[in-house]
Amino acid sequence: MREVINKYPRLLHGGDYNPEQWLDSPQVLEEDIRLMKEARVNCVSLGIFSWARLEPEEGEFHFGWIRRIIDKLYENGIYTILATPTGAMPNWMTAKYEEVRQMSPEGVRNLPGRRHNFCYTSPIMRKKMKKINHELSRHLGDHPGVILWHISNEYGGNGSDASCHCPQCQQAFREWLKEKYKTLDNLNHAWWTAFWSHTYTDWSQIHSPVPNGESRLHGLNLDWKRFVSHQIQDFCMEEIRAVLKYSVLPVTTNMMEYFKPLDYFRFAPQLSIISWDNYPEWHSQKDEVNVAVRTAAWHSMMRSLKKAPFLMMESTPSIVNWKAVNTQKRPGLHELSSLQAVACGSNSVQYFQWRKSRGSSEKFHGAVVDHRNGSNTRVFREVSALGSRMEQISDTVYPTCNRPKAAIVFDWENWWAVEDIEGPRKDMAYQDTILAHFKPFWEMGIDVDFVNEDCDLQGYRLVAAPLNYLYKKGYAKKVKDYVEAGGCYVATYFSGVVDETDLCILDRHPLEELLGIRTEEMDAAPEHRVNSIGFEGKSYKTGCLREISHVIPGEGAEVLASYESDYYAGCPALTRKSYGSGRAYYLACETEEAFLKALYAGLAEENGIGTEFTGRLPYGVTVSHREGGQDLWFVQNFNEAETQMELPGTYARVEDGMELKGSITLKPFECLILAAK
Amino acid sequence: MREVINKYPRLLHGGDYNPEQWLDSPQVLEEDIRLMKEARVNCVSLGIFSWARLEPEEGEFHFGWIRRIIDKLYENGIYTILATPTGAMPNWMTAKYEEVRQMSPEGVRNLPGRRHNFCYTSPIMRKKMKKINHELSRHLGDHPGVILWHISNEYGGNGSDASCHCPQCQQAFREWLKEKYKTLDNLNHAWWTAFWSHTYTDWSQIHSPVPNGESRLHGLNLDWKRFVSHQIQDFCMEEIRAVLKYSVLPVTTNMMEYFKPLDYFRFAPQLSIISWDNYPEWHSQKDEVNVAVRTAAWHSMMRSLKKAPFLMMESTPSIVNWKAVNTQKRPGLHELSSLQAVACGSNSVQYFQWRKSRGSSEKFHGAVVDHRNGSNTRVFREVSALGSRMEQISDTVYPTCNRPKAAIVFDWENWWAVEDIEGPRKDMAYQDTILAHFKPFWEMGIDVDFVNEDCDLQGYRLVAAPLNYLYKKGYAKKVKDYVEAGGCYVATYFSGVVDETDLCILDRHPLEELLGIRTEEMDAAPEHRVNSIGFEGKSYKTGCLREISHVIPGEGAEVLASYESDYYAGCPALTRKSYGSGRAYYLACETEEAFLKALYAGLAEENGIGTEFTGRLPYGVTVSHREGGQDLWFVQNFNEAETQMELPGTYARVEDGMELKGSITLKPFECLILAAK
Amino acid sequence: MREVINKYPRLLHGGDYNPEQWLDSPQVLEEDIRLMKEARVNCVSLGIFSWARLEPEEGEFHFGWIRRIIDKLYENGIYTILATPTGAMPNWMTAKYEEVRQMSPEGVRNLPGRRHNFCYTSPIMRKKMKKINHELSRHLGDHPGVILWHISNEYGGNGSDASCHCPQCQQAFREWLKEKYKTLDNLNHAWWTAFWSHTYTDWSQIHSPVPNGESRLHGLNLDWKRFVSHQIQDFCMEEIRAVLKYSVLPVTTNMMEYFKPLDYFRFAPQLSIISWDNYPEWHSQKDEVNVAVRTAAWHSMMRSLKKAPFLMMESTPSIVNWKAVNTQKRPGLHELSSLQAVACGSNSVQYFQWRKSRGSSEKFHGAVVDHRNGSNTRVFREVSALGSRMEQISDTVYPTCNRPKAAIVFDWENWWAVEDIEGPRKDMAYQDTILAHFKPFWEMGIDVDFVNEDCDLQGYRLVAAPLNYLYKKGYAKKVKDYVEAGGCYVATYFSGVVDETDLCILDRHPLEELLGIRTEEMDAAPEHRVNSIGFEGKSYKTGCLREISHVIPGEGAEVLASYESDYYAGCPALTRKSYGSGRAYYLACETEEAFLKALYAGLAEENGIGTEFTGRLPYGVTVSHREGGQDLWFVQNFNEAETQMELPGTYARVEDGMELKGSITLKPFECLILAAK
Ligand SMILES: [Zn+2]
Ligand SMILES: [Zn+2]
Ligand SMILES: [Zn+2]
Repeated sequence: MREVINKYPRLLHGGDYNPEQWLDSPQVLEEDIRLMKEARVNCVSLGIFSWARLEPEEGEFHFGWIRRIIDKLYENGIYTILATPTGAMPNWMTAKYEEVRQMSPEGVRNLPGRRHNFCYTSPIMRKKMKKINHELSRHLGDHPGVILWHISNEYGGNGSDASCHCPQCQQAFREWLKEKYKTLDNLNHAWWTAFWSHTYTDWSQIHSPVPNGESRLHGLNLDWKRFVSHQIQDFCMEEIRAVLKYSVLPVTTNMMEYFKPLDYFRFAPQLSIISWDNYPEWHSQKDEVNVAVRTAAWHSMMRSLKKAPFLMMESTPSIVNWKAVNTQKRPGLHELSSLQAVACGSNSVQYFQWRKSRGSSEKFHGAVVDHRNGSNTRVFREVSALGSRMEQISDTVYPTCNRPKAAIVFDWENWWAVEDIEGPRKDMAYQDTILAHFKPFWEMGIDVDFVNEDCDLQGYRLVAAPLNYLYKKGYAKKVKDYVEAGGCYVATYFSGVVDETDLCILDRHPLEELLGIRTEEMDAAPEHRVNSIGFEGKSYKTGCLREISHVIPGEGAEVLASYESDYYAGCPALTRKSYGSGRAYYLACETEEAFLKALYAGLAEENGIGTEFTGRLPYGVTVSHREGGQDLWFVQNFNEAETQMELPGTYARVEDGMELKGSITLKPFECLILAAK
Repeated sequence: MREVINKYPRLLHGGDYNPEQWLDSPQVLEEDIRLMKEARVNCVSLGIFSWARLEPEEGEFHFGWIRRIIDKLYENGIYTILATPTGAMPNWMTAKYEEVRQMSPEGVRNLPGRRHNFCYTSPIMRKKMKKINHELSRHLGDHPGVILWHISNEYGGNGSDASCHCPQCQQAFREWLKEKYKTLDNLNHAWWTAFWSHTYTDWSQIHSPVPNGESRLHGLNLDWKRFVSHQIQDFCMEEIRAVLKYSVLPVTTNMMEYFKPLDYFRFAPQLSIISWDNYPEWHSQKDEVNVAVRTAAWHSMMRSLKKAPFLMMESTPSIVNWKAVNTQKRPGLHELSSLQAVACGSNSVQYFQWRKSRGSSEKFHGAVVDHRNGSNTRVFREVSALGSRMEQISDTVYPTCNRPKAAIVFDWENWWAVEDIEGPRKDMAYQDTILAHFKPFWEMGIDVDFVNEDCDLQGYRLVAAPLNYLYKKGYAKKVKDYVEAGGCYVATYFSGVVDETDLCILDRHPLEELLGIRTEEMDAAPEHRVNSIGFEGKSYKTGCLREISHVIPGEGAEVLASYESDYYAGCPALTRKSYGSGRAYYLACETEEAFLKALYAGLAEENGIGTEFTGRLPYGVTVSHREGGQDLWFVQNFNEAETQMELPGTYARVEDGMELKGSITLKPFECLILAAK
Repeated sequence: MREVINKYPRLLHGGDYNPEQWLDSPQVLEEDIRLMKEARVNCVSLGIFSWARLEPEEGEFHFGWIRRIIDKLYENGIYTILATPTGAMPNWMTAKYEEVRQMSPEGVRNLPGRRHNFCYTSPIMRKKMKKINHELSRHLGDHPGVILWHISNEYGGNGSDASCHCPQCQQAFREWLKEKYKTLDNLNHAWWTAFWSHTYTDWSQIHSPVPNGESRLHGLNLDWKRFVSHQIQDFCMEEIRAVLKYSVLPVTTNMMEYFKPLDYFRFAPQLSIISWDNYPEWHSQKDEVNVAVRTAAWHSMMRSLKKAPFLMMESTPSIVNWKAVNTQKRPGLHELSSLQAVACGSNSVQYFQWRKSRGSSEKFHGAVVDHRNGSNTRVFREVSALGSRMEQISDTVYPTCNRPKAAIVFDWENWWAVEDIEGPRKDMAYQDTILAHFKPFWEMGIDVDFVNEDCDLQGYRLVAAPLNYLYKKGYAKKVKDYVEAGGCYVATYFSGVVDETDLCILDRHPLEELLGIRTEEMDAAPEHRVNSIGFEGKSYKTGCLREISHVIPGEGAEVLASYESDYYAGCPALTRKSYGSGRAYYLACETEEAFLKALYAGLAEENGIGTEFTGRLPYGVTVSHREGGQDLWFVQNFNEAETQMELPGTYARVEDGMELKGSITLKPFECLILAAK
C-alpha cells in the first residue's frame, strides 16, 4: 500500500497533548516525556487549542514554545501531529469581530465562548485562519518531528446542528442555490413551492429553515443541509491549502462517528488519510455486544471512506465526562476496544488526552496521566501494556487492510431526507436501521464496507440498502446494472420514494422492474397491533413499519415470506427476483433481529461471502480480517467472561508466533491476533 | 329545514383540490376529472392555498386558470366550494410588509414561511385580504358551479396559541379593554391588581401575557384570550363582508375540533353553515370506542353551534402524516367513520386531499389519489363505494337532523379560565372531563347537544355542567329558572367559583339555594390516597379532585352517595334537591367511568330521554338519530369484529328498503342506516 | 438568651396580612380584627406587596392607610412585622425605568410583571428603594406596634436562578473580579483558561455564563454564582441601612429552604434574626417520614445560621396552590407540622396568608380565612386551637433553644461547584446526599446543626461532610486540628477534589494524612452494575458513585467495610484512622439508607451524642430537644395512626403539667411537649 505517512510508517500510539496549559510548570513537561516513554507513546497531537498561545494578540505570533516542545519530543522519539488551531477562537478575535461568531436559527449572534462555533462563511474568520495557518506552515511545516497535519478539530461540533444562520451565510446559501438551480422556476418546482402558496418570486426571499420561519419545506431543508456540509468542507479545503503553502505533509481532520451534519463521503477526497474520534458507551447495556457492533460499524465507515487504513485520533483510556453516567472501562476492555479499532483498519490508538487538565470542563475526562498518583494507576499500566503490544505487532499489521465483499448503503443525503419527513412515523431512525442490517455480519465475522449512492458497487458480491428513501439521479440504473452483472441487492420498505429534491417519484418504483413488486400502502402500525411474517417455516415478529405490496404477475418475483395477520395477511414480506446474472431481494417491513440474522446467513452462503470463522463464533465473539501482507485474523471476545471457541484452522499468534488450533479459551475481553499458517 | 346551500341541496362528497400544483401537467388535471366521477365526487374545495397563483405579484391578478378549472368541474357535474386564500400568504407580501407577520410572545417577529401566521390586526393584511377577496367575489362569486364560500382555512392554526403579540395587537388590545372597562379603576378591580402591587396607572402599561413579563394575572390572561378570539372573529367577519360584495352565496369557515383559542360559539352567528376538519386517532388504542366517543362529541359540538346540519369539510381517506405514528384505517373503518359524521348531523364527507402533493410537508398525507397506482388502490375503492352509498341515501338523509333532549355545558371562557388556574391541580383537563360526562350518553345511544353559558337551556330535559368553574353574569339565575320550570341540572365540584373576570365569588356558591349544599374544602389528593363513594349499594372509585361539602340543614338536599374513607368519610358525594318542578344534582368529586354510567342511566330514565335503543346496545355499538323528514337511526359498530344485537323494532334499510328486525349481525365496522317503519 | 425582639418576647402566631387589597371593603377589615382575636393571632406581617399603595405615583407617598391599620391592630393586641415593599415593583417604575428590570441570560430585558425581578445592581432601583425605605422608617419605624423589619420578600425568588445579566451587572461583575483577582493573569490561572484557548486579554471580554456564550468554564460559573449572591446580599444590606435610618428595630428577611442561589451563611451576620418560609410537600409520599426529615433539616439550617432561635415567617394553614397536586393537610398535621418548627428552634408559627385574595395567582393558596364560610371551617378551627396551645407553652418554650452535639457540613460554594461539574455523573445531588446523612440522626432523635466550611467545628463531637468536593483555603487544616483535638470526622467519596477556584488539587488528597487512604479511580456505575459492601457481618447495597481507593500501608487506617464484587472487590469502602485524640472516617461510595443508619448508630454511641430517646423511637416518631430554660422534649408522631412508645423517664406535659412515663399512646400526628422532671 501507498505510505500516506512517510516519516513514521508504523502503528501510532499516543494522543492529544496540551502542554500550553502547563508552560509555567516545567517539571510537569519533563515528567510528561518520561512517562510517555514509559507508556510506549510514539506520537502526540499538538496545538489543537493553542491559538491564544500562538497568537496572543492579533498579528503577534509566538512559535518558540511549541517548537521547543516538538524538538524535545522528537529528541525522545516521539512524533507530532500538528493541528491548526481553529477549533477554538481566541477572545481577542471574538471580541473584536462579531461576524466570526455563529448566529443561531433564532437569529441571535452567539457570544464568545466554548468552541467549534465560528462562522465558516465569514471572510474575516477565513482571513485570520489563513494567516495563522500560513505562519504555522512556515515555521513548523518542515520540522522533522512533524508527520501529519491535523486540520482544525471535530468540524461542526458546536453542540447543535453545526449550522450558522448569519446574513453572510444566508447570502452564500442563495449564491449556492443560484449556482445549482439557475432559475427560480427550477427551484420552485424542485421544492414544490406551489404547495401552501410558497412560490418564491425573488432570490432574496429565501432564508435558511428556522423555527420561526420556514421549517416544513423539505426541499429547502435538504438543500440547506447540503449547503452547510459543503460550506464547512470548503472551509476545510481552504485550511488545507493554507497549511500546504510551505509544507508537503499529508493532511487529515478528525471526524466524529456518523456525524449527521457533515457528509464525510464528500470530505474524503480532499484528505490524505481519514481519522476520527471514537467514544463508545461501554458498559451502558447488559453486555457489550450492541456497543461493539455500533463501534465496529463506525470504524468500518471510516475505513470505507477511502477504502484504506485510517487513524483512530481520539479515544479515552478510561472514561469520558460528558455522559450522564461515566463508567470506568473494566480491566481488559481498554486493550480490546483499542485493538478493535486496529482490527477494523485503524493504524493508530490515540487518546484524548495525555494528561488531565487541571481546570475547566474536561478536567474529569479520562487521561493517561491523572491529577494524582502519577503513573501508579491501573489506567497507566493498561495503556503501557497496550503500547508494548502495539510495538510488537506493528511490522506485521501495518501493511495490511480489510477488503470486504459485502457493502451496506449509507448515504448522508438519504439520512437527512428520511429523518426530516412528515410521513408514516416521526421517529424514522436511519442509523439504527443500518445497524440492524450490519449486526448479522458482525456476528458472522464478516467485514462490511459502507458505500453511498455515488460509490461504485462493482467488486461487492452483496449490497444491502436499508431504508433507502431518496434515490439520487442514476442510482436506480446503477443498481440494475450491478445486479444484471451478477450482484445481489437487498432493497427494503420505504425506498425509492423521492428523487434528489425530495419530490415523490410518480407512478412506479424506480426499481419496479428489478424487484417485480408494486407497493400500494405503507402501514405504520401502533405498538399494540403486532404482526409477524412466516419465513422458512418459522414465524418472526415485524416492527411497526410495514409496506403492503403485491407481486406483479408474470414478472418473476418469488415470495419468500408473507405477513401472517391483519388485513394484509398473505401479502409478501420478502421477495426475490433473478435479474440478469444476479438477484434482487425486497424486504417489505421492519422485523425483529432474528429474521435479519436468518436472511443474511442465507445470503452469505448463497453469495459466498462467509469466512472460515462464519458459523463458528460464540455469542459475543467476532473476527475481523486484515489482508495484504499476511492474512491476519483479529479474534475479539466482547464477553466479560472466559469464552470457549473452536478455531477453524491452525494459526500463529502474531506477537510470539505461538501456534493455535482446535479448541481455545479466550480470556474476558481478550483480543487474539492470529496469522494464517 | 332552510336550505343553506341552495344550488346543490344534497349530501356532498369530495374534498380539497389543489390543481395549482399541477398546472404544468394538463394530463393530471384530465385524469382528476375522470377519477372524480369514478369516485362519485360531487364537490371540491378550491383555492385554499392559491394566493401566490391568483396574485403572483402585488396587484397583479390571474383568475383565468381557476375559472377554467371551475368551468370544467361544473361541466362534469362537480360543484366548487371556493376558498379565500388567506390561509397562507405569498412571499412577495411577507417580504415587503413585515407587519403582516405575527410576533411571538417573546417579541420576535416571525420570518416568512408556513401558514396561518398573519397578524389579524395588521391594517395592511386586512387591506390586501379585502382586495383579493373583492376580486375573487367579482370574478367568481356568481359562477353557477360555485356553491359556498370557504373563508380562509383553519383560523388560528399557527401551531401555537394563535395569538400575535405585535405592537399593533397590543394597541388594539388596550382599545378593546378601554371599551370593556371604561376606567383603569374598573380594570384594576376586575384583575385584582392590588395583589403583588400590580396596579396599572396608565393604559400604556398594559401588555399581553408573556413568559418574560406578566403571566400570572389571570384576569389579564382571560381577557387576552377573549381578545385574540374576538380579533380573529373580527377578521373573519371582514373577510365575509369582502366576499359578499359581489356575491350572495352562503359562507362557512373550517373549524378544528374544540380549538381552544377560538370561541366558536361566537363565530357561529356570522356563518351560514358550520364546517370542520375531522382527524381522529383511529387505531391508537386497544379498540376504537374512546376515539369514537371523542369524535362523536366533536361532531355534536359542530351541530350544536347552530343547532343545524353542518359539513365535515376535511377528513382523511386513509392516514394523516403529522402524528407520531400514522396507521392505515382498517377495511370498513373509512366508511364507518365517514358515516359517523353524517349520523351526527353532517351533510358531507369531504377529504383532505384529493391528490397527494408531490413535494413539501403534506406529500405523505392520505389522499384519494396516490402518487402511484392511480385508482388501483384499496383507498380509492373504499372511497368510491362510499360515494355510491351517499348518492343512494342523500334524498332520505338530507332533510333530517338530530334533535337531542339532553345538553352538556361546554363554555370556551370557562375552559380558558379553569385550565389557567393556579389551584388544586395544575392539570385541570376540561375537555377530558366533558368527555367523561358525554360517554355514558354515547353508550346509551342518546344524542347530546353542547351549549355554552349564554345559550338558552329551555327545551332540554337534562343539562349537565361539569367543572363549570366560571359563572357568567346571569348564568346562575338562568339555571335556577330552568330547574324551577322542570329541568334537571347536574352541577359538579369546582363550579361557580369565579365570576367573569376570574374574581372569586365571595360568601356563598351562586347556586347554594338550588343545590342545598355548602362547600368547605377542595382536596386534590395524590394518586396514592385512593377513596371511593357508595352509591345505590355499590362502591365506586373517586378521582383526585374531591370537594368536602355539607348539606345545609333543612334546605331539602338528599344525599345519594357519600365518601367511604379518609377524614371526610360520610360527607356527601352526590346530592339531589327538588326545586320548583325540577331537580338539581351536585356531584362533589371526580369518579371512575362506571359511576357516571350509573348516574346518567338513572337520570335518562328519570327524565325520559332514552331512545328505543337505550339499554340494548352491545359494547362498541351506538346509535344516532336524525329526524325531521323520516325517523332515521344510524347503527354504528365500532368493533373490529362481527357483533350481534337485538333491534328494538322493525326498520327499513334506507339504501334498499330491506326490512330488518329482531336479532341481527353487524359486520366489523358496519354502519346500518335504518328508517323507522 | 439575648432578646432579639424586645417589644414582644413571646412565641408569635399570625401571618402575612394584605389589607391593601380590601381598602374599599371596611367591613372586611373589621371582620379581620375580630377573627384574628378568635384565632389567637398576635402578630401579622404588613406591607410586603404595598409599594403601589404606599407610592402610587413616583415621589407621592401615602402612609395614612397603613398607619391606621397598624394602630387598629395594636389597639387589639396584635403586633406588626413591617415589610419593605421591594418584593414587587409598581408599574409606574417598571414602565419609566427599563433598567430596574432584570435581563435574562439570553440578553432579553424582562417586561414588567410578576415579582422578585428587579436588577439588584441598578442605581435607579437602589435609589427608589432607599427613598421608600427612608419614608417607611421615618413614618412607622418607631410605631409601638411594630416589632421587626421584614426586609423585602424572598430575595432571589424570580422563578429561575435569581440572576440578572444586564450590562450594569456585567460591569459590576468585572469590578468584583478585579477586586478579587487583581490581575488577568491571576484570573486566567484560576479559571484555567489556557484550556480551549480561552485566555482573557482584556477585562471587558468577561461576560456572565450564558447558554449562547461561555457556559463551561466552571471557575467563571462559580464566581458568577458568588457574585450574584454577593450582589443581592449587598442590596439587602443597603435596604437594612435605609430602614435603620429612623428606627432601631431588629431586621430579618424571609429565606427559602436551602435556596441555591443565595449563600445564607453570608447573609446571616447582617440580620438580627433568621426567618424563613416553610412549604413541605405533605402527603406527597406513602407516609410523611421523608418529608418530615427534609423539613427538619431545613429548620435545622435556619437555626444553625445564627445558632439561635429563628422565625417561621410563612407556612400554609392548609394547602399551597403552586404544586402539581395540592392536597389538604389531614386533621392534626397542621398542628404537628407547626410545632415541628418550634421543636427545631422556631419562635413563631406564621402563615401565608391571613385571608385569601380574591383574584390573581394566589387566590387559591391556603389561608386562615377562606372566600366563603368565614370562620366556620376546619382550617380556622385548627388554627385557633393551635393559637391557644401556643399561648399556653410560650413562657416555657420561648427561653430555650436546641444545642446539638453533631454537625453536618453544608456549604453553598461546594453545592454550586459539585452540581456544575462535568464529572462522573451529570446528576450529582448535593441536597439529597446531605439528607441521606441527616436522616439517621432524625430517626435517633438527635438534633443536628449545619455548618459550612468557614464555621468553627469546635464544640461538636461529630462532624460529617458528605460529598464535600470543594475545599476552601484552610479547611483541611481546620479539620485536622479538629480531629487531633478529639473530634470525629466523616469524609466521603468525591471530597477534597478541587480548591476554591475549582482547580483540581494535584498529587494528594488534602486529608490524605488524616484519612490514611489514597484514591485511584472514581467509578460511576450504571444502574445495572450493582455492587455491595460488607460491614459488621452484613451486606449493604452501594449506590452508583464508587471510589476505588487503597489504604496507605503503615499509615494506620483500618478497613471497616469492603466492596464485595466487580474488579475492585476487596477494596475499602469504609475506613477509620485514629489521629491525635480523635478519629477520621472515610466512606468510599454511595450506599443504601440502611448502611448509613448502621454507621451513624455506631458513631453516635462511640461519641456519646445520643439522647435518652435514642434507640427507643418507633418508626415515624422523632424527638427534638430545646434546652436553656427547662429541658424540653418535643415528641413528634408523623404516623397517620396511633403509635405506642415507651418513655425513657418521667416527664411533665408542658401545657398542663400532667405526669407521663412508661408506655404511652401517641395520637395520629400528635406532638407532645414534655419537660424533664
Ligand atoms: Zn455565518
Ligand atoms: Zn399583531
Ligand atoms: Zn442587572
